[in-house]
Amino acid sequence: MTERNIQIESVGRLAVEDQGVEIVERKGLGHPDSICDGIAESVSRVLSNLYRERVGDVLHYNTDETQLVAGSAAPAFGGGEMLEPIYVLIVGRATKHYVTDDGIEHDLPVDSVALEAARDYLRETIPELEVGTDIVIDVRLGEGSGDLKDVFGEDGQVPMANDTSFGVGHAPLTETERIVLEAEQALNGRYAAKNPEVGPDIKIMGKREGDRIDLTVAVAMVDAYVEDMAAYQRAVDDVQTFVTDLAEGYTDREVHVEVNTADDYDEGAIYLTTTGTSAEMGDDGSVGRGNRSNGLITPNRPMSMEATSGKNPVNHIGKIYNLLSTEIAHTVVDEVDGIRDLRVRLLSQIGRPIDQPHVADVELVTESEVEVGDIEEDIAAIVDRELAAVTDITDRVIDGELRTF
Amino acid sequence: MTERNIQIESVGRLAVEDQGVEIVERKGLGHPDSICDGIAESVSRVLSNLYRERVGDVLHYNTDETQLVAGSAAPAFGGGEMLEPIYVLIVGRATKHYVTDDGIEHDLPVDSVALEAARDYLRETIPELEVGTDIVIDVRLGEGSGDLKDVFGEDGQVPMANDTSFGVGHAPLTETERIVLEAEQALNGRYAAKNPEVGPDIKIMGKREGDRIDLTVAVAMVDAYVEDMAAYQRAVDDVQTFVTDLAEGYTDREVHVEVNTADDYDEGAIYLTTTGTSAEMGDDGSVGRGNRSNGLITPNRPMSMEATSGKNPVNHIGKIYNLLSTEIAHTVVDEVDGIRDLRVRLLSQIGRPIDQPHVADVELVTESEVEVGDIEEDIAAIVDRELAAVTDITDRVIDGELRTF
Amino acid sequence: MTERNIQIESVGRLAVEDQGVEIVERKGLGHPDSICDGIAESVSRVLSNLYRERVGDVLHYNTDETQLVAGSAAPAFGGGEMLEPIYVLIVGRATKHYVTDDGIEHDLPVDSVALEAARDYLRETIPELEVGTDIVIDVRLGEGSGDLKDVFGEDGQVPMANDTSFGVGHAPLTETERIVLEAEQALNGRYAAKNPEVGPDIKIMGKREGDRIDLTVAVAMVDAYVEDMAAYQRAVDDVQTFVTDLAEGYTDREVHVEVNTADDYDEGAIYLTTTGTSAEMGDDGSVGRGNRSNGLITPNRPMSMEATSGKNPVNHIGKIYNLLSTEIAHTVVDEVDGIRDLRVRLLSQIGRPIDQPHVADVELVTESEVEVGDIEEDIAAIVDRELAAVTDITDRVIDGELRTF
Amino acid sequence: MTERNIQIESVGRLAVEDQGVEIVERKGLGHPDSICDGIAESVSRVLSNLYRERVGDVLHYNTDETQLVAGSAAPAFGGGEMLEPIYVLIVGRATKHYVTDDGIEHDLPVDSVALEAARDYLRETIPELEVGTDIVIDVRLGEGSGDLKDVFGEDGQVPMANDTSFGVGHAPLTETERIVLEAEQALNGRYAAKNPEVGPDIKIMGKREGDRIDLTVAVAMVDAYVEDMAAYQRAVDDVQTFVTDLAEGYTDREVHVEVNTADDYDEGAIYLTTTGTSAEMGDDGSVGRGNRSNGLITPNRPMSMEATSGKNPVNHIGKIYNLLSTEIAHTVVDEVDGIRDLRVRLLSQIGRPIDQPHVADVELVTESEVEVGDIEEDIAAIVDRELAAVTDITDRVIDGELRTF
Repeated sequence: MTERNIQIESVGRLAVEDQGVEIVERKGLGHPDSICDGIAESVSRVLSNLYRERVGDVLHYNTDETQLVAGSAAPAFGGGEMLEPIYVLIVGRATKHYVTDDGIEHDLPVDSVALEAARDYLRETIPELEVGTDIVIDVRLGEGSGDLKDVFGEDGQVPMANDTSFGVGHAPLTETERIVLEAEQALNGRYAAKNPEVGPDIKIMGKREGDRIDLTVAVAMVDAYVEDMAAYQRAVDDVQTFVTDLAEGYTDREVHVEVNTADDYDEGAIYLTTTGTSAEMGDDGSVGRGNRSNGLITPNRPMSMEATSGKNPVNHIGKIYNLLSTEIAHTVVDEVDGIRDLRVRLLSQIGRPIDQPHVADVELVTESEVEVGDIEEDIAAIVDRELAAVTDITDRVIDGELRTF
Repeated sequence: MTERNIQIESVGRLAVEDQGVEIVERKGLGHPDSICDGIAESVSRVLSNLYRERVGDVLHYNTDETQLVAGSAAPAFGGGEMLEPIYVLIVGRATKHYVTDDGIEHDLPVDSVALEAARDYLRETIPELEVGTDIVIDVRLGEGSGDLKDVFGEDGQVPMANDTSFGVGHAPLTETERIVLEAEQALNGRYAAKNPEVGPDIKIMGKREGDRIDLTVAVAMVDAYVEDMAAYQRAVDDVQTFVTDLAEGYTDREVHVEVNTADDYDEGAIYLTTTGTSAEMGDDGSVGRGNRSNGLITPNRPMSMEATSGKNPVNHIGKIYNLLSTEIAHTVVDEVDGIRDLRVRLLSQIGRPIDQPHVADVELVTESEVEVGDIEEDIAAIVDRELAAVTDITDRVIDGELRTF
Repeated sequence: MTERNIQIESVGRLAVEDQGVEIVERKGLGHPDSICDGIAESVSRVLSNLYRERVGDVLHYNTDETQLVAGSAAPAFGGGEMLEPIYVLIVGRATKHYVTDDGIEHDLPVDSVALEAARDYLRETIPELEVGTDIVIDVRLGEGSGDLKDVFGEDGQVPMANDTSFGVGHAPLTETERIVLEAEQALNGRYAAKNPEVGPDIKIMGKREGDRIDLTVAVAMVDAYVEDMAAYQRAVDDVQTFVTDLAEGYTDREVHVEVNTADDYDEGAIYLTTTGTSAEMGDDGSVGRGNRSNGLITPNRPMSMEATSGKNPVNHIGKIYNLLSTEIAHTVVDEVDGIRDLRVRLLSQIGRPIDQPHVADVELVTESEVEVGDIEEDIAAIVDRELAAVTDITDRVIDGELRTF
Repeated sequence: MTERNIQIESVGRLAVEDQGVEIVERKGLGHPDSICDGIAESVSRVLSNLYRERVGDVLHYNTDETQLVAGSAAPAFGGGEMLEPIYVLIVGRATKHYVTDDGIEHDLPVDSVALEAARDYLRETIPELEVGTDIVIDVRLGEGSGDLKDVFGEDGQVPMANDTSFGVGHAPLTETERIVLEAEQALNGRYAAKNPEVGPDIKIMGKREGDRIDLTVAVAMVDAYVEDMAAYQRAVDDVQTFVTDLAEGYTDREVHVEVNTADDYDEGAIYLTTTGTSAEMGDDGSVGRGNRSNGLITPNRPMSMEATSGKNPVNHIGKIYNLLSTEIAHTVVDEVDGIRDLRVRLLSQIGRPIDQPHVADVELVTESEVEVGDIEEDIAAIVDRELAAVTDITDRVIDGELRTF
């Protein structure tokens, strides 16, 4: 055991699963905020790889600020059209030059690979959106501050925290959390594969009161695959059935699902889009405004405000500590019996090595037959071990193994 | 009592004040994220007023997406200079035309007043930043979606929720929360008035472990008022003393304050700026990424991800419910004895009247001698009353009475 | 004969072909200014077609202001890379809505088709430039002024001039003019088809002093097709030979050709590019700054400053009168014998029908055996006839039959 | 006499003053194209001065590509308002760093001073336009190409031409040219000082047919100083009278002046603006699209297509040769008797010293009693002398002594 400041405590609360009211939200892949998260993280990974390939090491960068300005569109049954393009501005800092041992300065195609990463990401996740005409992507990546560059560790050393910040993670997921997460992924995955009218902009709000779960689902329908109002209604009903069935596979509680609640068929006011995302018509988006790094927004749980997507995975605490605390939470719950609900927080101080947080604190609810004192040491050991291996997070992020939103 | 769905519960937890580890953060006025929040909210208020003056009613708009792209600067003792301007893009939707009863269409100077509001706000809060040369402000306000416009209520009716979303509030503040909040405000207020070297970009991270409070303070010093390294060190020391004294006025706990921790005097790496904000050199910013509507980031408390700043105060739930739940929490704590810690959440469903949330749930910790059952009815009555008066929030926002960040 | 104000005169000068010094320049398709001209004109044509298809008539628009901001690149033998993208801003006015007889307003996808036209144009003319990553295209098309919209004629009427402006044309081409024009077209056409190292950014400056013609040719070589310095030198030599041969086919005068004069092989300073255009590295561009509508810059001839590309072909005098005067000049020279050199100018006055110029003046040099008085009437009749048929120009522009740069 | 290639010739033509039809145009200070020229040249001068002050020498830059995107406005008698701001993008290249002898790299505040220069220029020339709210100014100045930097001469050496290009100048001005030039300057000067309703966007088109001169004047009236339609008509009439009187002071020919020809009082369609420039409502602008460096557009004279404004005055031929040839033309006409009309052209070749043009050719019309042969040598001597002193042009440009548009 090292000298790391690790605190374990119980505050005596009910596990979230047992609380009276629970709220859980997920913004799907095509939501304007998620689009920004996805672009920011794609750009981040491609930059990490660029630096590794050319320089051997990740250089300073940060791309956690993509902004999306909505376009306008004229959707119509059978296929409408974009009127004004969506505008995306990739914002951040990146190192654009490096000097080799022979004293020669080399340029890095930072802007070009960023644009390429954004384009490739959009083509894959929002295929109805034609990059260059339906959506314009521009880039403003400045050079970073010299000071922050120095925070990067020497070869083999643990990097220093770039900021005074914290990350939060918890485990295990509650039923409502799993349902909300899985429903969006299933809709955007196997369901959309067979039902192309379902666009990627899906938002699910789950509310549990006691043993009743209400799911409010908003799905941007793609007009090219919806012939008329009857077809639209069928599409809505099919989603309702699918989500209900899926949810009932995860819970014995009572489940109610409503889809596209704001529709008014009489007025013809329905959620029809040309591209499958509300970004086509008035909904702007930003990095870090949507899902936390576990894929959810969970006001029954503490959350970090940090944008995980787009940050540098080497020393950006707002990224690393959110991902690591989530990993730790799941690992502890997997390895230690008797935990009903657990939260991990890691707090950095700028300039300290990232494996030495200012504090790592664990708050948990145990099963009734287990005392915190019985498992405290096991938990602390796991936290300590995971902190020692903090730099593994970097590699897993670059390899795309860890979700950031 | 109406039919509102109001839930009161205790989950048995410790009050935050009594928990072992507490983390509290505040980003000051000059932080890049706060700059964006401040501009977005200023633009919002000026648009509300424009609509009221010209049309008699607030029309549809949303300006909660300002993006700041950092500039670059060359600070120097005695006064440096900006090299590349900061770039701010005001993003959102606004109604730009209206038709009077005589059928004539009128234009509204939406973009112009937005730019004016942003400029005026910056001049007041970051006086060292010359608008137009140190910072370029541009605007992209599209026309909103027709559907959402219809959500606005008829005259006298309660508006419908524009989204399925939730707000969170809590009361009272803990000692650490009060200290973090007050310290930033005092530094940016009476302290800066006498010590012009203290720039508005102040960030305070508070950590409490048991009865020890650590405050990590970062202050962007303004180079024109700092002659040399000795003066810089004095400035840092003075801030340290001031914050320590202030904190000790709010608590009997042990207080430790560190200022500009990342400084390295030997390497000359210090937190010196030309304009008083890190936006001048590499730090980008965005609306809704910083403080919650109570002015703090509190990972011991549930938080909403919604950006409160910039949203329409008439029907934008992400704004109204965050502000209202905070108001309710403080009102309940003021009016009902025996509450140690209370959290209010309001969840909307798109299309429902905003005074009829999908659920209003209150979770609380009572003083040891008080049972939840004893005060449950009183609390519910207050929640009910405040929800009935929800539209008051709109006016108070427009009048600038409510903080949003 | 109508009442049109047609003036014919001789000012007694030498024909350009007989003057002592003649200068002729052409910027090829891939020159930054020509790129802007080409995009502007493509956008113009696609908008004309959009309006015709949807509304039945061309509505008000003007897109003659595309701006190109150069990128940066790192060319290298065998294939380099773009570092920072080129940025193109399509600027102008366009009508974005129209109302059908049933009172319903319809939207027009003006921005989207503009972006599409620009992309398609670039793919065809500068194939090495990947749109979206090597070059970012954005669009700012505002709504036009109401007054100018009214200038458009009623059905069947001749439109009114949108401005007080003039156009100039001349015929026939001199030897030097033909050589400069043909050499660029041949290089960018049949030569480049077989020699892919020749990029589309070709600039030719022709100077004739008496009977000696000097051609200074700049060709942006494409690095992917140039293996090393030896290959580069061969490519330069081949262009030199090709242009010399071509030129000698058009003249008996002495021809000297220099290619890529600024190269310095010793310093490795050569004209190597990754994309085939100098826009990749520092050379900005703009509409209307390059070739006149006859494809040349001819300081021995009067020229109009008007940008022909991108203007509305219905009533924009800066376009119609430049194209029409060039057409008239060639028609007169074809149909009337004895003309050695002829210039046509058409001057409009805002608000007058475009077939009634303020003045149409012809200045000419005759063959020695011909008097102006002998052919004056014939010329005037042709000018009158062509002015009466001015609206044909509109159709031919929209069909892409007329060169604008 | 040096080895400079100087050619003198007569082509036998009539002097422009004696030709049957003459056309002359000037776009006033507030015309969108002139605004761009003015900003570009202001930015250029401030950069030259910055480099001289900090580095001792002008470094490589080029800012000849400012683009203006029109705004929209709602003018009204007594004072209207801007709706959407004008957008100006300063485009170009500039050197942003330099290294002193001690090996230390210094940054130059290129973007900041460019923005400042643009703002100051606008405040002076278009005072009704509030910078930052009525007009947004942004800047994209890239780093230039290394090769071109090298073209700059060593200390004391004559710089090398940056391009293969030419400049044109002529003298003396014809009556019509003087009238057009003086009328705009008087209107924008002493007349506007007393008649604030006259905005700076003034365009004058002069046409002379034989001994009749028609002037078509367009003046953007400023709404705050025009109470009603009657006041507007008075303002128009007053300008008509003023220009007529002024013109008659320069000529004995018959003068006809029309002001704001496109007005239609019945329809209320008049040339009323809020800011004094048509850029507020639909008219875009660009550098180099308006007046040539002598302040006029003269289709009876050869012209250069080069934008003189914004170019580097050290080695940018498109600037230096246009200014120098105009200077030479006036000097020759001043010093040598018997010249009725004279044109000077200077053609460069990239990489040659700028005092050694590829050719300097003079074409002239003499008074009837003078033979070209009589004055040929005198003229050549003056051309030679002026070319030898070419670098004086650089200083005079930087000091603001030479008009560029």
